[in-house]
Amino acid sequence: MTAQSMDELVALAKRRGFIFQSSDIYGGLQGVYDYGPLGVELKNNLKAAWWRAMVYERDDVEGLDAAILTNPTTLKHSGHEDTFTDPLVDCRSCKSRWRADHLADGKCPGCGAEDLTEPRPFNLMFKTQVGPVQDENGNFAYLRPETAQAIFTNFKNVVDATSPKLPFGIAQIGKAFRNEITPRNFIFRVREFEQMELEFFVRPGEDDAWHEQWVEARLQWWAQQGVPRETIELYHVPSDELAHYSKATVDLMYRFPHGVEELEGIANRTDFDLGSHTKNQDDFGIDAKVAPNSDSNAKLAIQDLQGKGWTVPYVIEPSAGVDRGVLAVMNEAYTVETLDNGSERTVMAFQPHLAPIKVAILPLKRNHEGIVARAKAIKNQLMSLGIGRIFYEDTGNIGKGYRRHDEVGTPLCVTVDFQTIEEDDTVTVRNRDTMTQERIKVEELAHYVNQFMRMS
Amino acid sequence: MTAQSMDELVALAKRRGFIFQSSDIYGGLQGVYDYGPLGVELKNNLKAAWWRAMVYERDDVEGLDAAILTNPTTLKHSGHEDTFTDPLVDCRSCKSRWRADHLADGKCPGCGAEDLTEPRPFNLMFKTQVGPVQDENGNFAYLRPETAQAIFTNFKNVVDATSPKLPFGIAQIGKAFRNEITPRNFIFRVREFEQMELEFFVRPGEDDAWHEQWVEARLQWWAQQGVPRETIELYHVPSDELAHYSKATVDLMYRFPHGVEELEGIANRTDFDLGSHTKNQDDFGIDAKVAPNSDSNAKLAIQDLQGKGWTVPYVIEPSAGVDRGVLAVMNEAYTVETLDNGSERTVMAFQPHLAPIKVAILPLKRNHEGIVARAKAIKNQLMSLGIGRIFYEDTGNIGKGYRRHDEVGTPLCVTVDFQTIEEDDTVTVRNRDTMTQERIKVEELAHYVNQFMRMS
Repeated sequence: MTAQSMDELVALAKRRGFIFQSSDIYGGLQGVYDYGPLGVELKNNLKAAWWRAMVYERDDVEGLDAAILTNPTTLKHSGHEDTFTDPLVDCRSCKSRWRADHLADGKCPGCGAEDLTEPRPFNLMFKTQVGPVQDENGNFAYLRPETAQAIFTNFKNVVDATSPKLPFGIAQIGKAFRNEITPRNFIFRVREFEQMELEFFVRPGEDDAWHEQWVEARLQWWAQQGVPRETIELYHVPSDELAHYSKATVDLMYRFPHGVEELEGIANRTDFDLGSHTKNQDDFGIDAKVAPNSDSNAKLAIQDLQGKGWTVPYVIEPSAGVDRGVLAVMNEAYTVETLDNGSERTVMAFQPHLAPIKVAILPLKRNHEGIVARAKAIKNQLMSLGIGRIFYEDTGNIGKGYRRHDEVGTPLCVTVDFQTIEEDDTVTVRNRDTMTQERIKVEELAHYVNQFMRMS
Repeated sequence: MTAQSMDELVALAKRRGFIFQSSDIYGGLQGVYDYGPLGVELKNNLKAAWWRAMVYERDDVEGLDAAILTNPTTLKHSGHEDTFTDPLVDCRSCKSRWRADHLADGKCPGCGAEDLTEPRPFNLMFKTQVGPVQDENGNFAYLRPETAQAIFTNFKNVVDATSPKLPFGIAQIGKAFRNEITPRNFIFRVREFEQMELEFFVRPGEDDAWHEQWVEARLQWWAQQGVPRETIELYHVPSDELAHYSKATVDLMYRFPHGVEELEGIANRTDFDLGSHTKNQDDFGIDAKVAPNSDSNAKLAIQDLQGKGWTVPYVIEPSAGVDRGVLAVMNEAYTVETLDNGSERTVMAFQPHLAPIKVAILPLKRNHEGIVARAKAIKNQLMSLGIGRIFYEDTGNIGKGYRRHDEVGTPLCVTVDFQTIEEDDTVTVRNRDTMTQERIKVEELAHYVNQFMRMS
């Protein structure tokens, strides 16, 4: 099941502490959001799942965490200064400004007027003055519009430090910034967002096969995050719509509450990037059309095994949006069920490894010393498993506690009661999805929880 | 042991892929660094250790992950627009600009001239134009100069979502930006950095005791990260040096390679922050001197248990630098030993939970099918423990592999040889610190590694 509308998700996200409008108490900041106590866990878990799949589970990928502030020369040679633009029109009537491709029927979405200017390119990169001298030109940096470029500019550093052989990749997760003209659809189109990008370097000629392989791998990964294959359409970008660097791009189009839009793009960027950023371009027989580069001080190529020639690798890039991923995961998890007694329950049916809270510990009585002490000891024991957040829920109302944790997607609730401390040292473990309860020996609980988290 | 100089650390950091100068191939970007394959793991492990201690191991702290782009109104009411400045002087001779408190003997560090202007305040916040209209004033955001403010502006959101009782805290890790005039000392004083900040809200009157308690807790935490108590001096900031919001501040001063400087500050910020950002200030009897606020739409206070009065909590803030933490941890870990045979080895003696690579798997022969298959299977098995990066090291030279992994701080090396596959299904486990080797049954290896990581 999914949410009926974006509004449902937005409301739950705010009420339960997943996502808030940023700078809320001062009227907000358009296209910028903050992740609350549960949102930060969900987002971190999604990022950790990506990192695990990309870096830990492979032998051919290294990680990177580069800076946001970026030297303009990087974004000159990447092509961003010239081409990273949206077409903009002004409304002559109400003076508002809009993206040309977002106009409804050629009318201003602000006032409905039809008197609009011709589209002009508007660069989407944020810039900021760097250093103390404010009256000099050229002393600025961009906020990176994507994480990819720092992977290319660090290519030689990583190669020198890790001596990889082709094919190999460099993975990065981090913030990126785009001065979107009309941010909208909650955390879908925002000005500050996070990306998970892999640049996978391959031999020319092996690029098509790797491209296919990565599309398949990424679909499998999303399915493991609770975004099944059948919710995603593949969009093979037609050649006249391809970005200037791309030989082929496949977009994973997910059915968001507001419509089918891009969740991730997997592009074959050819040797455009390393070719654009390398020195001595003429030595390498670069396939892509690159602009001359007299600024770079490094050779971004790999020496052949025989030690003779040098190759500028092709790049396959699976590039996913973290925030869009969070939105898709929340949308897929959102479930409203009618129970046998006619009442409704809302469940966020997150995959356990993504759930913000793994286990809630509920003492039957919030003020009973023995029960509270036992519940806290159990919390500490489960915490030491290192599986994520274990939550001590001391509302003292078990039924209400279950409902609260259904709504935030906690897979297991453990209730500590008088039977625990007076009779058989067992607790009740209640399953979010089946709503079944079973009594488990406390001494077996850690193993039970561990197995549950690993099997799911 | 520690490094003899910053240069030693910088060289190792670059050579082994911990930290690179950002935008390196284009001449760098001053005061901005990138974390390489090992650096990103070390930094993430340090952040995870903080998050675990702050959020997972406590019942009274919630997490947050707010945006970098910040509404200027937030930083007006926080006091940053007026007071977040450094005193700046110009050299009339060479036209360079310097921090007044960094001048050596009143001489220009650039050209040695003494003809300097009087100091003038220079605001350290980066700003950037937001939205498509470039010719209008006021349409900008700041890059946050600290993570703390978004905790205060989200105070009501978090309280509404989680219904906490005093005392409680909100923790955040994230990037912050300061336009430092003279960035220096590697990753110590930089323009883009990361913070780990806790804002711990307490009842007025309980603030002094909590302040002491947090100083002690933070010292213990740093010791667990391999930065022992005796390497840190406490600096009780004298009242005439206190920031305008602070009633008392204790700085943890660590002996960095370049000198004794601040690693973390623990401040008693009184009710200044919530008081400054709240609406209806006059209703609350705020102790701090706050400027009037007619912009805020939220009451940043906690209702008393009896439901009658409202309290604006005091705040104790332990605020640590992630990059400074990485630098301190690397410095403490850096060890050069002379072995019995007279040769030297360099060891990064990281605490195991911080080590970028937890276990290296070394096949004795890199091309022997049976050994390689077994080594990869062991890698996969250890990976499934979820303890971090397990590295498949296929150089085929065991002694060299040990040295490589000493130098990056890998606590355990596991060698797979002919005895493994032909005789008794054991592997050699070699300990980084003791350099001892023992043979362990493969079926017991996961348990051995798990125990080792948990005990360390």
